[in-house]
Amino acid sequence: MKTMYWKDNHLFLLDQTELPDEITYFECKTYKDVIHAIKTMKVRGAPAIGVAAAFGMALAELAGEDLQKAGDEIKAARPTAVNLFWAVDRVFNSDNVLDEALKMYDEDIETNKAIGKYGSTVIDNGDTILTHCNAGALACVDYGTALGVIRAAFHEGKKIKVICDETRPFCQGARLSVFEMQQENIPVKLIVDSAAGRMMQAGKVSKVIVGADRVAKGGVANKIGTLMVALAAKRFNIPFYVAAPKSTFDFENSIYDTEIEEREPDEVLYFGECRVAPEGTEVENPSFDIVPGDLITGIITEEGILEPF
Amino acid sequence: MKTMYWKDNHLFLLDQTELPDEITYFECKTYKDVIHAIKTMKVRGAPAIGVAAAFGMALAELAGEDLQKAGDEIKAARPTAVNLFWAVDRVFNSDNVLDEALKMYDEDIETNKAIGKYGSTVIDNGDTILTHCNAGALACVDYGTALGVIRAAFHEGKKIKVICDETRPFCQGARLSVFEMQQENIPVKLIVDSAAGRMMQAGKVSKVIVGADRVAKGGVANKIGTLMVALAAKRFNIPFYVAAPKSTFDFENSIYDTEIEEREPDEVLYFGECRVAPEGTEVENPSFDIVPGDLITGIITEEGILEPF
Repeated sequence: MKTMYWKDNHLFLLDQTELPDEITYFECKTYKDVIHAIKTMKVRGAPAIGVAAAFGMALAELAGEDLQKAGDEIKAARPTAVNLFWAVDRVFNSDNVLDEALKMYDEDIETNKAIGKYGSTVIDNGDTILTHCNAGALACVDYGTALGVIRAAFHEGKKIKVICDETRPFCQGARLSVFEMQQENIPVKLIVDSAAGRMMQAGKVSKVIVGADRVAKGGVANKIGTLMVALAAKRFNIPFYVAAPKSTFDFENSIYDTEIEEREPDEVLYFGECRVAPEGTEVENPSFDIVPGDLITGIITEEGILEPF
Repeated sequence: MKTMYWKDNHLFLLDQTELPDEITYFECKTYKDVIHAIKTMKVRGAPAIGVAAAFGMALAELAGEDLQKAGDEIKAARPTAVNLFWAVDRVFNSDNVLDEALKMYDEDIETNKAIGKYGSTVIDNGDTILTHCNAGALACVDYGTALGVIRAAFHEGKKIKVICDETRPFCQGARLSVFEMQQENIPVKLIVDSAAGRMMQAGKVSKVIVGADRVAKGGVANKIGTLMVALAAKRFNIPFYVAAPKSTFDFENSIYDTEIEEREPDEVLYFGECRVAPEGTEVENPSFDIVPGDLITGIITEEGILEPF
């Protein structure tokens, strides 16, 4: 099962809003279809968004669209993940947009395997690893960043267990990370986000590994909830690792300059068809957290484990 | 709208599992009905559980049941809230079980108003107060503990706003606290639990007030998620208050000896009819957190504001 594939000059995206119940692919015939898929989170996860955006540019070129304009529109689809900007610029500046997108597709898997190789060195036999959101194969083309580290350690024969935060409001942890771990037969448990502190206090967590949407001066931006997990890990002296490709890095800007995407209230107010709160309830729904560098033990990349900068 | 009332020798409990959509009362004809209501959280919140348990004992006495046996069964309904034990013992040792239960019913409201009076002294004009779970009128007979403090400050004319954590898995924040604040016309916003850290980091929270299921040596036990809220408040130098009646205090035991109730996986796996995670997913669902005393600014009681002990 792939997160996306390119066929007959169209991009096919695994519709992650339907997982784990249905495995269906959303066909993108135009770059606007790709923008729609990114906005509605049919495709999500910084690396996957980057490669999808690159293919979006390829669709724009094949249709004879203005690539500058298409690129600007694609970049505006979601504001926080740095990979989106990186990917659009990279294919825009390449000799052949489609070839470059296909190259990025292949590179993504290699990058994640390198992250897995470096990351597995910090995983010990017997570890229980807590993760938040989904930085797995489904957040990438394949294999994953945070879950890639877990995969690598598991396939090296280390006996490990995984705890997934459900990750409200979109439940990427419950729907996607749990599903990925079950597919690999890696022992996995689900908790509500707010139970992570309790699990650590009770001695049930030995490491935390999460992904990142942006790594910049002073820290990391990642899914809402990551900050509170990092604070709990600090309190209970549990190593807190971020796994992210170098394409996620922004060496120029402060992490505190990151635009934090505010998503629709209905993500919080409804769960499928079920309404959670009274009609007309006002909601704040920030989609990302900023985790200060002092809470981060190390950043696992395809080039090795780095310190926050 | 009352959380409970006694009429024609039966106890009527507002069914909180149906809020905010439906206002219906569950009629308890026997003490076993009360146990059922406590277990299924038709009635919840430490003070409300205590008074309901007292009326449960009255039902047992009216039916000629063995009060010792009924008391033991009622105490076993939920293990964490100390009020349950306190209430059963108090009516058991009284001259007249029903009279004592009715007295506790009246006392609860007076106690909460005293908590509100002391608590409002720490609330400033312009404060935005974050609360977790529901320590409101619905957690008591009326008025509330944490939300009682907010009510008192608001009715004294202080301009305040409230942020409610949704409080997974049972969503007492979204369903009950938001509802209570809206009924009073107190400005309120809803967030997912994991966004509390972000709101604090962004300077959008000036105080935190929560309730407690148990106050003992070394800290406080309260709804799962309270620990992570307290850790975030500490990080961002935001005062963190607990509001709780003295009936919640246990001066004998360490808070770390508290039995943490583990509830059903389905609370996490389903949301109404909607399943969140794949079939057969393993879940840990601890219902309470232990918050160490060093994270607590003060404990607001009916006798004044105390330090953790």
